[in-house]
Amino acid sequence: MIIILKNDISQNITKLQKLFAGKKQVLVQQNRVAVVGAAKQDLPAEIQAAAQIIENTPAAIQSSRLFHPEDIVIRTPHTVIDNNHLIIMAGPCSVESREHILKMAAVAKQGGATVLRGGAFKPRTSPYSFQGLGETGLKYLREAADLNGMDVVTEVMDDEHVPLVAKYTDIFQIGARNMQNFSLLKAVGKTKIPVALKRGMSATIDDLLNAAEYIAAGGNQQIMLIERGIRTFDNKYTRNTFDVAAIPVLQQLTPYPVIADPSHAVGRWDLVTPMAAAGVAAGAAGLMVEIHDDPKRALSDGPQALKPDTYLKMTQQAQAIRTLMAD
Amino acid sequence: MIIILKNDISQNITKLQKLFAGKKQVLVQQNRVAVVGAAKQDLPAEIQAAAQIIENTPAAIQSSRLFHPEDIVIRTPHTVIDNNHLIIMAGPCSVESREHILKMAAVAKQGGATVLRGGAFKPRTSPYSFQGLGETGLKYLREAADLNGMDVVTEVMDDEHVPLVAKYTDIFQIGARNMQNFSLLKAVGKTKIPVALKRGMSATIDDLLNAAEYIAAGGNQQIMLIERGIRTFDNKYTRNTFDVAAIPVLQQLTPYPVIADPSHAVGRWDLVTPMAAAGVAAGAAGLMVEIHDDPKRALSDGPQALKPDTYLKMTQQAQAIRTLMAD
Amino acid sequence: MIIILKNDISQNITKLQKLFAGKKQVLVQQNRVAVVGAAKQDLPAEIQAAAQIIENTPAAIQSSRLFHPEDIVIRTPHTVIDNNHLIIMAGPCSVESREHILKMAAVAKQGGATVLRGGAFKPRTSPYSFQGLGETGLKYLREAADLNGMDVVTEVMDDEHVPLVAKYTDIFQIGARNMQNFSLLKAVGKTKIPVALKRGMSATIDDLLNAAEYIAAGGNQQIMLIERGIRTFDNKYTRNTFDVAAIPVLQQLTPYPVIADPSHAVGRWDLVTPMAAAGVAAGAAGLMVEIHDDPKRALSDGPQALKPDTYLKMTQQAQAIRTLMAD
Amino acid sequence: MIIILKNDISQNITKLQKLFAGKKQVLVQQNRVAVVGAAKQDLPAEIQAAAQIIENTPAAIQSSRLFHPEDIVIRTPHTVIDNNHLIIMAGPCSVESREHILKMAAVAKQGGATVLRGGAFKPRTSPYSFQGLGETGLKYLREAADLNGMDVVTEVMDDEHVPLVAKYTDIFQIGARNMQNFSLLKAVGKTKIPVALKRGMSATIDDLLNAAEYIAAGGNQQIMLIERGIRTFDNKYTRNTFDVAAIPVLQQLTPYPVIADPSHAVGRWDLVTPMAAAGVAAGAAGLMVEIHDDPKRALSDGPQALKPDTYLKMTQQAQAIRTLMAD
Repeated sequence: MIIILKNDISQNITKLQKLFAGKKQVLVQQNRVAVVGAAKQDLPAEIQAAAQIIENTPAAIQSSRLFHPEDIVIRTPHTVIDNNHLIIMAGPCSVESREHILKMAAVAKQGGATVLRGGAFKPRTSPYSFQGLGETGLKYLREAADLNGMDVVTEVMDDEHVPLVAKYTDIFQIGARNMQNFSLLKAVGKTKIPVALKRGMSATIDDLLNAAEYIAAGGNQQIMLIERGIRTFDNKYTRNTFDVAAIPVLQQLTPYPVIADPSHAVGRWDLVTPMAAAGVAAGAAGLMVEIHDDPKRALSDGPQALKPDTYLKMTQQAQAIRTLMAD
Repeated sequence: MIIILKNDISQNITKLQKLFAGKKQVLVQQNRVAVVGAAKQDLPAEIQAAAQIIENTPAAIQSSRLFHPEDIVIRTPHTVIDNNHLIIMAGPCSVESREHILKMAAVAKQGGATVLRGGAFKPRTSPYSFQGLGETGLKYLREAADLNGMDVVTEVMDDEHVPLVAKYTDIFQIGARNMQNFSLLKAVGKTKIPVALKRGMSATIDDLLNAAEYIAAGGNQQIMLIERGIRTFDNKYTRNTFDVAAIPVLQQLTPYPVIADPSHAVGRWDLVTPMAAAGVAAGAAGLMVEIHDDPKRALSDGPQALKPDTYLKMTQQAQAIRTLMAD
Repeated sequence: MIIILKNDISQNITKLQKLFAGKKQVLVQQNRVAVVGAAKQDLPAEIQAAAQIIENTPAAIQSSRLFHPEDIVIRTPHTVIDNNHLIIMAGPCSVESREHILKMAAVAKQGGATVLRGGAFKPRTSPYSFQGLGETGLKYLREAADLNGMDVVTEVMDDEHVPLVAKYTDIFQIGARNMQNFSLLKAVGKTKIPVALKRGMSATIDDLLNAAEYIAAGGNQQIMLIERGIRTFDNKYTRNTFDVAAIPVLQQLTPYPVIADPSHAVGRWDLVTPMAAAGVAAGAAGLMVEIHDDPKRALSDGPQALKPDTYLKMTQQAQAIRTLMAD
Repeated sequence: MIIILKNDISQNITKLQKLFAGKKQVLVQQNRVAVVGAAKQDLPAEIQAAAQIIENTPAAIQSSRLFHPEDIVIRTPHTVIDNNHLIIMAGPCSVESREHILKMAAVAKQGGATVLRGGAFKPRTSPYSFQGLGETGLKYLREAADLNGMDVVTEVMDDEHVPLVAKYTDIFQIGARNMQNFSLLKAVGKTKIPVALKRGMSATIDDLLNAAEYIAAGGNQQIMLIERGIRTFDNKYTRNTFDVAAIPVLQQLTPYPVIADPSHAVGRWDLVTPMAAAGVAAGAAGLMVEIHDDPKRALSDGPQALKPDTYLKMTQQAQAIRTLMAD
């Protein structure tokens, strides 16, 4: 239940907090009070009379616009992530070497990216595949971002690594395979660092919002959601199915910015540009894309990496569509 | 196997036709000869030497760019459907009355549509739902299109109705539920009328191309393919999942123009505009959209119909994106 | 709405038929009256008072146990299809020749099959694949069944062929790809011949019941439903995913017998026996399986055909499980 | 590549280990040597000559019968898990109280279960749902199992908790949502405790085997795989789709025992019995089922819990089918 208070707001909030103390979870957002698992008849008559009460609330209550109507704006040192800009996060799939990430950071920057991506801890399907450079990779990534005046986004794979990754990153990435790793979600929820939460391969919209709610429930609402393709029956020509409609659907339901990741959605570099265009046309607040100067030698996910020149054209087109949409 | 002849083309074609007569199906497209189910060693040495031979061909051989490299351009009286324009097909889900379709045709036209859509034979999930006006509906639809200088696209549901529908339409529509109604595909394949083939709800890209091949095998390659959403695990907020990546994938594989149908893809009018934008950004050659002046009273699919003013804004935006993409 | 009349049944039925004549569709089943699209307040007070009224009815109202609580029993000359037996339908995918179907019929019979299956009109993914022997195939199939004292089930692919196929078959089969070919469903619904309706590859339980309703709405409730696997993300090791839970789910919802088709569900002969066992253990009223004495030379679907000896063992095991379950 | 040595086995193993030391991962299983990422030409001629070499090996090489042809048998104090028995794991979804788990353990035992299940750390979709009793729950669970001469299986949700859970359990359960939590898989792979790995909701067979490989790669091959339903387009009547064919498919591919979890597969208690029967008929080595004496008051997953009497009938039927299958 959400109670939208009309007057005596701070008094009524206090009253509600006392009423439910030790019994129900009470969440406050300006003049809105959410009480988890409570119903209208649990409220004093005077609050029932003076407030607007929403009874059918989603489980992910803090992640709902019913509780938080305004857009949540995320600010990192060099980036504002909201619905008024198109931000670019780019970089190689994995941090491969100091030299390579420095080179890729410069390319990313040239295409307008303000956030540098790169994996140091890699969730690979096979245990025998390259697992990332670990902390060394984080150091290289941080250095490359700093040299180019960029922010860092990188994946954290388990709760134990949260403090380590926190030392180097501006944004935690939670990967699709960990979207329901609740221990990890709780751990990043206790930090003040923004989180880029990727939709799981078979996660419904509600599953994604409930995962975000785990982070929010810890006190951290600096969340952005990433649509990166879902698993469907058709996977011959694309690795996943890019669920482009999820972008406006999420924007209606939740205050968090929504980012499109066309690279993972299709898994083929030659489709990344049209999918990036589609994502921006559908209203995405940002793009996360993988780039590589020599995709055939990439240590991971080479087939979906854009070469520098294709990347630069892609970002130009994407920004042009964004500008057009804003008119 | 496809044989790309380099010289003595007409002679060699004759030679190949004789060689395989009564044994294998031989298809000819300019200097390309497809022989269904044959292999290189079945060919005379001199042809093996003088031609380029492609052995790994898809089952839908005529629908492949390997056999037909150039775009297929479809011309109806008022429309050219190809990859150089964005064409609009609009109209109500069902023809509801003479008055109504006349009104809707004028709206469709105002938004730049050159093709009027409307169902007279309706494939409804329940037998107790409105099944369409039948031939009367076709007459109204034809009249409304003619009065506005537009073409007609309308669904034909079975092979028996092909001659009747042919009297009134410029383009046959094959619905998603009939995508593998092979009797129907064969029947429209024997006509000279263009066919708009909708992708089935769980049809892979290859299934769609094989369905198109049934039409082509009858001698009719005036085919356009319509992406209209596929069935996935996530259907709470959208009726289907709009597989926007199918648009560039199909354009690579096949010479047929690809149309996006955002109305059926999402099933909600408020998402049609962003999905139309996404489809155009991904490269669609056209849009098929449902419009209605009073969606709540629509006899079918009201929730996904655009009202006239939303439709007009949508088409403006779509054309602007198309123009941007063409630059 | 379904009205369960308690007294003055025939009088009240007449009253209800008059009341809704020309306005709503009225269906009668013993003391139950379904009125499509009507609500309780549309009824006279005395009927409201004297009857039990079910307001939340599924769209497929005649196919629901709410309207038809008892099992529907289907009787063909040599077979009773109901929930008290395990019946076997077996035969080759396609009728290949007179000699072959005679041979296969004897094998089928030996394994306890009372219904001989075989396709004369084949819905093939590619137009260049074998399309069946047509009426000649039907003749061979009928002869083979008659010689062995068996019934015939064979696919009818379009409404035009219904009268032709009706001359030879005891049971119409509607294939998965035609499950929503509404013209065909209406055509078989007007006959008195039992129909074996296969679930479409991406058909929900409700879609299947609505398809059955098209047949029932024409006056034919001699329907059996066939679970034959659905399309999911996982198709590397099996062609489809056998939705074994659909068997008890359908038995709860609908009075029609439910048959399992393990051959199409998995597409691999070596998994047919465990899947047949699973289907029987889950409560199937019958099995439809494909057999072939030389699967490598089968004109269609060879990889899923059981050889005679495997078939005989499979049916023994299936009957043993059935007997066990019945205790 | 897998090398099956025919003679001089220990010598050749040493030779191969030296050859690839520091370059490729070498795994040994009796006379089989797997070299990850190597090809035939990397081998000395004399080994090429004297051994059988399998070049097309799956990524999950240790989890393949190509590398480990014999069944892996798992022995816990009171249970032998292999393909010659049907073992039962039963208990409530969550450990709710000391009293309750004692009561449920007695019921589980009565139905022939030798393994007691119960969650102390619960992966719940919503952060506001009951999250489990933690270590207290583990203590109650251990006590209840010990009092009844049973083993314990319980979920571990993250790598940090592995040592804690190890103190109380005989088998680690990895939940579906954590199937690709690679940090967790690595952590349990370093223990000697058996692992029950649940298939992820959208995990392919290969994904599941690769997840198992992470555990095996750490040195722990005491793995059992649990089929618990996958996510598909049809979820109105069942929570997931029970992929019963996965049971024989996995048994062919991998040496690990395969367990069926009908409770999670369907999410409805009234379908658990037929699905358990189907799973056993398909060849499952065991069943994992949820039981509760008062499902409406269960702290989690009440709708899928069997009441004691239904559970006892279910296990009798399952054992009877198992006995029949073994004949």
